[in-house]
Amino acid sequence: MSSTEGQVIHCKAAVAWEAGKPLVIEEVEVAPPQENEVRLKILFTSLCHTDVYFWEAKGQTPMFPRIYGHEAGGIVESVGPGVTDLAPGDKVLPVFTGECKECRHCKSEESNMCDLLRINTDRGVMLADGKSRFTVKGKPIYHFLGTSTFSEYTVCHVGSVAKINPDAPLDKVCVLSCGISTGLGATLNVAKPKKGQSVAIFGLGAVGLAAAEGARLCGASKIIGVDLNASRFEQAKNFGCTDFVNPKDHDKPVQQVIADMTDGGVDRSVECTGNVQAMISAFECVHDGWGVAVLVGVPNKDDAFKTHPVNFLNERTLKGTFFGNYKPRTDLPSVVEKYMNKELEVEKFITHSVPFSEINKAFEIMLKGEGLRCIIRMED
Amino acid sequence: MSSTEGQVIHCKAAVAWEAGKPLVIEEVEVAPPQENEVRLKILFTSLCHTDVYFWEAKGQTPMFPRIYGHEAGGIVESVGPGVTDLAPGDKVLPVFTGECKECRHCKSEESNMCDLLRINTDRGVMLADGKSRFTVKGKPIYHFLGTSTFSEYTVCHVGSVAKINPDAPLDKVCVLSCGISTGLGATLNVAKPKKGQSVAIFGLGAVGLAAAEGARLCGASKIIGVDLNASRFEQAKNFGCTDFVNPKDHDKPVQQVIADMTDGGVDRSVECTGNVQAMISAFECVHDGWGVAVLVGVPNKDDAFKTHPVNFLNERTLKGTFFGNYKPRTDLPSVVEKYMNKELEVEKFITHSVPFSEINKAFEIMLKGEGLRCIIRMED
Ligand SMILES: NC(=O)c1ccc[n+]([C@@H]2O[C@H](COP(=O)([O-])OP(=O)(O)OC[C@H]3O[C@@H](n4cnc5c(N)ncnc54)[C@H](O)[C@@H]3O)[C@@H](O)[C@H]2O)c1
Ligand SMILES: NC(=O)c1ccc[n+]([C@@H]2O[C@H](COP(=O)([O-])OP(=O)(O)OC[C@H]3O[C@@H](n4cnc5c(N)ncnc54)[C@H](O)[C@@H]3O)[C@@H](O)[C@H]2O)c1
Ligand SMILES: [Zn+2]
Ligand SMILES: [Zn+2]
Ligand SMILES: [Zn+2]
Ligand SMILES: [Zn+2]
Repeated sequence: MSSTEGQVIHCKAAVAWEAGKPLVIEEVEVAPPQENEVRLKILFTSLCHTDVYFWEAKGQTPMFPRIYGHEAGGIVESVGPGVTDLAPGDKVLPVFTGECKECRHCKSEESNMCDLLRINTDRGVMLADGKSRFTVKGKPIYHFLGTSTFSEYTVCHVGSVAKINPDAPLDKVCVLSCGISTGLGATLNVAKPKKGQSVAIFGLGAVGLAAAEGARLCGASKIIGVDLNASRFEQAKNFGCTDFVNPKDHDKPVQQVIADMTDGGVDRSVECTGNVQAMISAFECVHDGWGVAVLVGVPNKDDAFKTHPVNFLNERTLKGTFFGNYKPRTDLPSVVEKYMNKELEVEKFITHSVPFSEINKAFEIMLKGEGLRCIIRMED
Repeated sequence: MSSTEGQVIHCKAAVAWEAGKPLVIEEVEVAPPQENEVRLKILFTSLCHTDVYFWEAKGQTPMFPRIYGHEAGGIVESVGPGVTDLAPGDKVLPVFTGECKECRHCKSEESNMCDLLRINTDRGVMLADGKSRFTVKGKPIYHFLGTSTFSEYTVCHVGSVAKINPDAPLDKVCVLSCGISTGLGATLNVAKPKKGQSVAIFGLGAVGLAAAEGARLCGASKIIGVDLNASRFEQAKNFGCTDFVNPKDHDKPVQQVIADMTDGGVDRSVECTGNVQAMISAFECVHDGWGVAVLVGVPNKDDAFKTHPVNFLNERTLKGTFFGNYKPRTDLPSVVEKYMNKELEVEKFITHSVPFSEINKAFEIMLKGEGLRCIIRMED
């Protein structure tokens, strides 16, 4: 039993008080976990574009003050009533979408969209009692995605926490709790290119590069990286990309450029930008007859996906995925094992690292479009 | 060798001189088949909604004068140079989309969208020489879908003609050359519901009812028929439909009505209307996590399929199909065999029959939304 069990923990958290304004490291109070909740000590967290979107709140419902963060690794500090799967000391990855193991989705082989714990970007409170576990001087602070990992301690529903190999280095595998697994799974579990096929990847951030890595693992022969930011291209070669398209370099739509490069279209595409125009292009650039496009990026609230229905009738398939179709508790430990077995390299995704006190630098780096993942070290 | 081989044949055809105006039975001249073409004697043809759309030319490119018709059965009268697969006397079904057996699509297991011979609604001439084989008093008449079966004789590319069991009764199996196979294949080959799943069918014309029949063959437990025309419902019970929704009876969108009937959405949907709003509803009514929607209806030229991208991210799949993903020459004979083996009943799709001289009645019946398939008897 930890000395803090059952107590309010006073610790540091990076609070977003206003949309788009730098986070402020505050002394927060973290209440003990309630029924089916666990309290985690976060050791490493990284920044994903989804944090940035909701913090900017340009196309998303603003909800402030809030503690962002959802890609992380930590240790269970204490568990609430009813928790039997996890115990203090367990090494875990919190995940932005959960798995209750009992609903129709959790029981379906095909879905990871748990009825109870699926991602809910508009909920800023815990399920058990509709309240926050965070306060700053008594004022409640909203949670984000049930994880809020930009805090030394956080409270999660047990269903949003994957127990992993105790030997796994959290400073590396923390990135598997969202972006990398999302991109990897989008290709391995959803797009499923066959050996020798061509794949277009839209967006060469961490998610897109993980999708490219998945295409390489599948034996794709041509992997076309598409990004508006040409500085992404050099790096992308390390992730299997063989060809590059910057839509800005062309007068014709990027789907046409890709069709011209591939005798009519790629066999598979994976969209990892969040930009609805890129989603449309990613769909329209797949070959008729058999092409499959997979959407991963998180769109704005009012975006509309628009295409001529004949693009579907011409036997194209469009799918979307959350978290690469991995069930977080059931499947994520095996993705960590891929790293432990050296099937999957995660180091190359980690381009920056900052101490918690400099978390705003991680935001600046992502906003500049530099690097892939920036690890935020909670303990120094 | 038939006595007409190599000769121009003078026979009757129903010519559409103007959009939306009754067809006129004319004496036409049908030129002999050229390289890789065959000339067919049509014995039975039926009317499909696709004929009506292009004849109305409301949302489609007008092309007149034209001979419509693409659901039919006949006998090879003569073959042009280079034709080795077919011989005079063969019993055949002409098909609106062809199969060259040599292109990437034909060689792909997944596609039936032949590069050379796929459906082309805007081409009114033969591939070999860009000319029509039909004239009326020397004036060329456009072909339709490479079939133009509203004529006692017609010329098709050999790749658009499926040779079938010589014992098959053409007055029945003629309907398998388009609508019924399209609907059946959309379910059996594309939507693929699992035993016990729920399926929504939008549009209860012949294509939709064939899709429902496919759902029943797959063991679907709930088959929801959706149509704006309530008179379709009684008949649809014979095709496996267990529940019915008329969008006109509800204040809320039909996708919401269906979600409420099925605890969140159907497992599969098949859209067989051609109406873009129905396409959107058919997509949005499938369950998140695993739902698959399949588009079959032919949309208007300027239609836009529009939905929020989150509907895809929530792990729904949208596909389209032409001709139920059957390869016309390779697979259609086996659909005819299903009828011959009594696995598939086609009689129940045939609700009307008229002599060729009364072909305009078939149009009236379809425009009134009565019945399913009207057989047009060429020989009486
Ligand atoms: N579905 C999920 O489960 C899930 C999980 C994690 C992240 N995401 C989403 O995936 C997306 C990518 O995340 P990331 O962390 O890699 O972000 P990132 O910002 O690091 O990378 C995005 C890349 O897309 C490029 N881009 C933007 N618009 C483009 C366009 N129109 N055409 C081509 N390229 C364009 C940017 O230049 C950038 O390089 C985000 O939308 C994020 O919210 C989804
Ligand atoms: N993709 C292909 O290969 C292919 C092949 C054949 C036919 N088709 C198309 O399939 C569609 C159906 O053909 P059919 O011959 O069965 O036509 P049909 O006219 O006999 O049946 C269509 C039915 O849809 C209903 N309907 C129309 N709008 C609707 C709406 N918004 N909501 C619900 N129901 C609606 C009508 O009332 C009618 O009962 C047509 O669009 C046709 O062009 C496609
Ligand atoms: Zn993320
Ligand atoms: Zn669940
Ligand atoms: Zn048809
Ligand atoms: Zn072909």
